[in-house]
Amino acid sequence: MIIVLKPRAKQEDIARVEAMVKRKGLDSHIVVGAEMTIIGCIGDTTQVDPKLFEVDSAVDKVMHVQEPYKLANRAFHPEDSVIDVSGVKVGGGYLAMIAGPCSVESVDQVMEIAKAVKASGANLLRGGAFKPRTSPYSFQGLGLKGLDILCEVRDAVGLPIVTELMSPDYLDIFNEKVDLIQIGARNMQNFDLLKQLGQVDRPILLKRGLNATYEEWIMSAEYIMASGNENVILCERGIRTFETYTRNTLDLQSIPVLRRLTHLPIIVDPSHAGGKWWLVDSMAKASVAAGADGLMIEVHNNPECALCDGAQSLKPRKYDDLLRDVSQIAAVTGKTF
Amino acid sequence: MIIVLKPRAKQEDIARVEAMVKRKGLDSHIVVGAEMTIIGCIGDTTQVDPKLFEVDSAVDKVMHVQEPYKLANRAFHPEDSVIDVSGVKVGGGYLAMIAGPCSVESVDQVMEIAKAVKASGANLLRGGAFKPRTSPYSFQGLGLKGLDILCEVRDAVGLPIVTELMSPDYLDIFNEKVDLIQIGARNMQNFDLLKQLGQVDRPILLKRGLNATYEEWIMSAEYIMASGNENVILCERGIRTFETYTRNTLDLQSIPVLRRLTHLPIIVDPSHAGGKWWLVDSMAKASVAAGADGLMIEVHNNPECALCDGAQSLKPRKYDDLLRDVSQIAAVTGKTF
Amino acid sequence: MIIVLKPRAKQEDIARVEAMVKRKGLDSHIVVGAEMTIIGCIGDTTQVDPKLFEVDSAVDKVMHVQEPYKLANRAFHPEDSVIDVSGVKVGGGYLAMIAGPCSVESVDQVMEIAKAVKASGANLLRGGAFKPRTSPYSFQGLGLKGLDILCEVRDAVGLPIVTELMSPDYLDIFNEKVDLIQIGARNMQNFDLLKQLGQVDRPILLKRGLNATYEEWIMSAEYIMASGNENVILCERGIRTFETYTRNTLDLQSIPVLRRLTHLPIIVDPSHAGGKWWLVDSMAKASVAAGADGLMIEVHNNPECALCDGAQSLKPRKYDDLLRDVSQIAAVTGKTF
Amino acid sequence: MIIVLKPRAKQEDIARVEAMVKRKGLDSHIVVGAEMTIIGCIGDTTQVDPKLFEVDSAVDKVMHVQEPYKLANRAFHPEDSVIDVSGVKVGGGYLAMIAGPCSVESVDQVMEIAKAVKASGANLLRGGAFKPRTSPYSFQGLGLKGLDILCEVRDAVGLPIVTELMSPDYLDIFNEKVDLIQIGARNMQNFDLLKQLGQVDRPILLKRGLNATYEEWIMSAEYIMASGNENVILCERGIRTFETYTRNTLDLQSIPVLRRLTHLPIIVDPSHAGGKWWLVDSMAKASVAAGADGLMIEVHNNPECALCDGAQSLKPRKYDDLLRDVSQIAAVTGKTF
Repeated sequence: MIIVLKPRAKQEDIARVEAMVKRKGLDSHIVVGAEMTIIGCIGDTTQVDPKLFEVDSAVDKVMHVQEPYKLANRAFHPEDSVIDVSGVKVGGGYLAMIAGPCSVESVDQVMEIAKAVKASGANLLRGGAFKPRTSPYSFQGLGLKGLDILCEVRDAVGLPIVTELMSPDYLDIFNEKVDLIQIGARNMQNFDLLKQLGQVDRPILLKRGLNATYEEWIMSAEYIMASGNENVILCERGIRTFETYTRNTLDLQSIPVLRRLTHLPIIVDPSHAGGKWWLVDSMAKASVAAGADGLMIEVHNNPECALCDGAQSLKPRKYDDLLRDVSQIAAVTGKTF
Repeated sequence: MIIVLKPRAKQEDIARVEAMVKRKGLDSHIVVGAEMTIIGCIGDTTQVDPKLFEVDSAVDKVMHVQEPYKLANRAFHPEDSVIDVSGVKVGGGYLAMIAGPCSVESVDQVMEIAKAVKASGANLLRGGAFKPRTSPYSFQGLGLKGLDILCEVRDAVGLPIVTELMSPDYLDIFNEKVDLIQIGARNMQNFDLLKQLGQVDRPILLKRGLNATYEEWIMSAEYIMASGNENVILCERGIRTFETYTRNTLDLQSIPVLRRLTHLPIIVDPSHAGGKWWLVDSMAKASVAAGADGLMIEVHNNPECALCDGAQSLKPRKYDDLLRDVSQIAAVTGKTF
Repeated sequence: MIIVLKPRAKQEDIARVEAMVKRKGLDSHIVVGAEMTIIGCIGDTTQVDPKLFEVDSAVDKVMHVQEPYKLANRAFHPEDSVIDVSGVKVGGGYLAMIAGPCSVESVDQVMEIAKAVKASGANLLRGGAFKPRTSPYSFQGLGLKGLDILCEVRDAVGLPIVTELMSPDYLDIFNEKVDLIQIGARNMQNFDLLKQLGQVDRPILLKRGLNATYEEWIMSAEYIMASGNENVILCERGIRTFETYTRNTLDLQSIPVLRRLTHLPIIVDPSHAGGKWWLVDSMAKASVAAGADGLMIEVHNNPECALCDGAQSLKPRKYDDLLRDVSQIAAVTGKTF
Repeated sequence: MIIVLKPRAKQEDIARVEAMVKRKGLDSHIVVGAEMTIIGCIGDTTQVDPKLFEVDSAVDKVMHVQEPYKLANRAFHPEDSVIDVSGVKVGGGYLAMIAGPCSVESVDQVMEIAKAVKASGANLLRGGAFKPRTSPYSFQGLGLKGLDILCEVRDAVGLPIVTELMSPDYLDIFNEKVDLIQIGARNMQNFDLLKQLGQVDRPILLKRGLNATYEEWIMSAEYIMASGNENVILCERGIRTFETYTRNTLDLQSIPVLRRLTHLPIIVDPSHAGGKWWLVDSMAKASVAAGADGLMIEVHNNPECALCDGAQSLKPRKYDDLLRDVSQIAAVTGKTF
């Protein structure tokens, strides 16, 4: 941490700020320049809030130098983490190919889609049982009944399941039944929920919040890890920008950046990012070309009648075509699924 | 709702889309232009997801015409709502003057601040017992002990209390003890929590999410209202933009816009928006000049030693000076506190 | 400037980077911590591009400590600048009250509006002769004929004129005829034009670009000042964010922030920020309450028939009501017009 | 264009707005719903400003239905445009591979880089002679001397050249000497310059502005086309968002979206988007996988000593590796270079 003092700071100002630094258990190192003075703080600064120093009238600004995360930090864990999702490996060269309907609607619907996507190469099945909806008047998902449908299809088809948890009330039942527990963008900073996920045995799929910086996103993973569960997969799903033609702006630079900052796997959800099915094909290919560890794609056998987000779902046939291209691109980046 | 068909839509395309409209219980009205055809949908469209129509290959885009909210809509409730917070009126000419420390630290601390801000004109006391923090290693608040401190000070000083609820686990105890329950920016779309707030007797202070549009923000209020609790106060606290000199960008246009769209009161939190104490004075005055129904301001007797966010806290004396100016500006806009 | 080296930098890395620092004419000061090493660079860093150091494989990041601007910097010019616009003072307690139509349409139109706004208290007349339009098919302004109309009205009514320059081709004619030359948001980083403005005798009104940070905005003023013209007035007019209900998001925190960073006056244009006339009243009051040095407001005698942006124009009578309130708020902040 | 009236609009309101529509040369079609009335406007609405109607007190909002651009619109020109840059085809299956230094520094420097990138497969040479810099104190480029160096290298190596034009003063000399004239992000809405580009024989490379929507970007191309020059290539180079770890956020969804909206070729500049050389490799591959018509990449033989933006430049050897991968991915999308 570096504390920059205001121009013309006096000796007593420097001494006072230095004393604050010491009280926080850090060593200080003063650099006096012609026009300004800086104080380098040495020690474990992850637990010190830099804003505390900004209160002092002699302080101009305080800058973090070290990343505030440890468990998720690649600097302390140089190898890629490979997460095991009920036998399916994700990360370190293994691609997660997650596919399925936005919402679980019926056993027949999910069964038909699951068989189709498995035949195309998918290795994990997604489907929403509890749905976060902007409007209280929109379809909110089948709930526990939807969860049972997913389990039934998993047992029949043989694909581990991924579904979103919205409330701590269902934590135990998800831990029992769900192979990969998804936390949605809107709950990325629901810190109470994150802490409780530390108690869970299952791996967690943590979506990026719509306005989350890379650092905040990793810090949310750090919450889960620091609470006891180190099996976290990150999922880029677009951020909110001024451009409204697409639902969100897919930020594929997040892939190389997070690869450098953290050892956790990172996958991409192109269906939710763009909100339009005709964007999925090109963005899925781009994600894998950029080095993503997997894709989460909405597939529906009858998008016209989907209860939710049909406009962003691929039909099984298009998904099949897509995976053919994706496997060729994956070969270029040295990955497989 | 208006459905725009792609150029050169055929008769059969129009008929098919029209049939979809009818299946949703709406009437349709076709407008055929030289270069494009539109279908006006008439009826209650709040429960119809416009994206469903975008799936059809003949549809170019679907546009909402009507607001998707009802209970919060000023069109159906033209008078300003005045919310009663344990005897303090908020809205319709009555300003909420909420002040207090970011975090509850001790009885003495809160007591001293509470007495000071009451003397300056504050009518509600704030203080964080449960703190949402980006880092799992930061101070997380005193929890229930903090809540007890707030209650003790309320009883002694006579200011109703405002504090943030982060988890449904504490819903009953907040309903019992807290006068105005705050939902923070990061939980604005924690839909499960919003639904449970409908069961509570206390009014709710709903902060705007960092990336929430006006409509999404009102829809979150609508969630609470539709679940049974119509006493919601909205709080602008800045949005996330490209400008990082300030913590967030305070969006004061939200005041006249929400005044037009909804009958709910809207207050402003200039302390969290800017993240710097020296921005509070000018932004507080600007908020009241813009017509806000109140201010939520952090005040600390010893910001240098605050456990959290000291850099954005005013000292009691500066708060006193501020309220003097604010009361003059309030007079210009015909409001009082 | 501070250079942060990657963890575990070796002695030879440190020496190499230090040599680069010296080659740039700066002194270096090494701080070796347990987990990282930083190099403080001392000297005039305004002319050194920090990115140059990021190329080195041992460098993690480079952070600016000092502001890159000098002439516009309040640190080197503590008093408020007061700019003289043909006899009207702007800054340091004097408010610029600029009003007039978006586009110049005819002598009669401008004359009628100018007389009305002068009677209400305006001290400068605005009107667009050259109009920046997103579409090549939209009305582009009357051009030089519009400029002549403005001059004729100025002579008759006695209000100095403000109008936008879009092309260096008209620099001489603007310098001769226009009292305050406006540079629009879209040209804020038209660096060639900025340099040429340094040769002009007239003061410049520099609007903030839609995506300009505070620092970039001041740097554009610095371009003009470094080229020879120190009379620059800054104008906040909203930035682009994810919220699209309003045309742009008016950032009133820019007022206290720029007040601290620079000595130049800063005014606000609430008409262009929101794009809706009914937002102007509250935002104009808020701007002055926040400490702005003036307002630029569109007024039209017949908004329904305006050739451009009628939707954001006030009628003269509403403008008159507004200035009455504004003068009361200005009194609270110790300013006058 | 669709005009939505406010709830409970009266017959006289409808008649008045309808008359406005007719005065603009459009036909109107009224749809009266239970809760609201809309007026569909039929005819050529590209030259009608929808804001004009928002002035009327009975109008709630006005929505564009038709795109405001014609010449650039794929609807009126279904086949991909293929632009000829002095013999190099761009678009419709032909990839532009533009490479070279950020700034022209010397004949030797450009010559060495040009030979290297040509050997790797580049077909166009880039290099900045006039540099847009945020600071007036930064290196501004060699100017006309830099242009002569580019021409000399072109003649020796046989790669057509691409360089940025910043001022209309140099239009004739660029038209004479430059094969593809680049307009930078900061001048994307320098409308005067755009109009003058219509008079030029050379094709134009139009970069996306940092805050430009897809529509605004196409409208800027439309300016050039409507002024007489239909040879425009679009270049995505990142947009400004809240994320500051990268210089800008590369928006690769722009590729499929613009492919649908316009027939003009679209290429990607991953070097400027991220601002870090280690992001270029993955983003270049992702761009081609997403269907881009080319890449513009900074290559420098000695990034450590580059006068500008060395941190984002690849060394020739890494560029060579990259193009090997890119050609494999291009094969998957059916393109070649």
